[in-house]
Amino acid sequence: MHNQTPCVDLSQLESVYAPLAESIRRLIDVSIRSEAEPAAVASAKAKIDAAAAELGETAQPGPVGVRHTPDGQAVAWGNAVVGVRNPVAPPLVVRHEADGLVWSEFTLGPAYEGPPGHVHGGVCALVLDHVLGATAHQPGRPAYTGTLTLRYRRRTALERPLRAQAHVERTEGVKTFAVGHLADEDGVTVEAHGIFIHPRQPPA
Amino acid sequence: MHNQTPCVDLSQLESVYAPLAESIRRLIDVSIRSEAEPAAVASAKAKIDAAAAELGETAQPGPVGVRHTPDGQAVAWGNAVVGVRNPVAPPLVVRHEADGLVWSEFTLGPAYEGPPGHVHGGVCALVLDHVLGATAHQPGRPAYTGTLTLRYRRRTALERPLRAQAHVERTEGVKTFAVGHLADEDGVTVEAHGIFIHPRQPPA
Repeated sequence: MHNQTPCVDLSQLESVYAPLAESIRRLIDVSIRSEAEPAAVASAKAKIDAAAAELGETAQPGPVGVRHTPDGQAVAWGNAVVGVRNPVAPPLVVRHEADGLVWSEFTLGPAYEGPPGHVHGGVCALVLDHVLGATAHQPGRPAYTGTLTLRYRRRTALERPLRAQAHVERTEGVKTFAVGHLADEDGVTVEAHGIFIHPRQPPA
Repeated sequence: MHNQTPCVDLSQLESVYAPLAESIRRLIDVSIRSEAEPAAVASAKAKIDAAAAELGETAQPGPVGVRHTPDGQAVAWGNAVVGVRNPVAPPLVVRHEADGLVWSEFTLGPAYEGPPGHVHGGVCALVLDHVLGATAHQPGRPAYTGTLTLRYRRRTALERPLRAQAHVERTEGVKTFAVGHLADEDGVTVEAHGIFIHPRQPPA
């Protein structure tokens, strides 16, 4: 399963589907913060259900997986952190520097709340797992999380500019040892280190 | 900030807003899997934007935080893991047994994808942070993640029944040491242990 990697013009599809995901992200945000009366909620809900029915007519079973562009580049279409089509993803844009540094700058809104006004500690873990893992990923050679250790120095505020970054500390065979952190404008909020593993054989 | 804990009839509000969040979760799911043509996507997007505008008229600034029922029970309204109003949350229903065991059973769909067909490793961390932390939470006395360590034994499949559970290993002053795991029908997929801290003073 999931070995099919259809080769389509993703940039064209992205121009259709990325704005849809952005619209749903805005809807998620206002739906959490809305104090609409029951009649207004019912009216909005009817529109949402109609939109879901419309999109559902051509919905494929199962998850989306990775798609490939004509030049062979893998696109994590539905990924929970970076997927441009996934409204649950912020989505992060992950940058790779020539020296191996991997980083992403972003802001997290009410949809990622844990303690009131603050980012859920598990969302910090989600972001750091992805950014640390990105130090090990190679085209056509994914890496899987082996272990991940997080140390929370202080809380991370919602709706403030954040930066996650990571680099490779060392590699040993199929293992990549990565370190990184999440930071706001006042410094590091969460430290992370992880071991990411390249399977010896591509997963079935 | 965020010290306001309005006391309202949440069960009545939940009957209005929880179905809205459920509708948006369905929309998220089909939107990721849809292969709708551009015209159908534009039509659905227009409905979504109209719904967002309708809900946005009464949207309050900032995150939602915790609300309290008349009997003083705290409800994590917008929480990224358990928030009934948060479409990004699966949402988990977390159970507390008399012997201290905390558990939740759930299924994760395409919105939580990492490796194709599998749960994002960071989403496993998100869920485990919450369930381990729930062993330490007490009414009016929240606990914050201090450290969290995850060991991934194997991948966790999407769209299969999953169970997360945790218990307290020991406590030392303000620290709760919790252990737990995520499992599918074939056994444990991710092990976790964490230290959760009760602030000596309630956070500002």
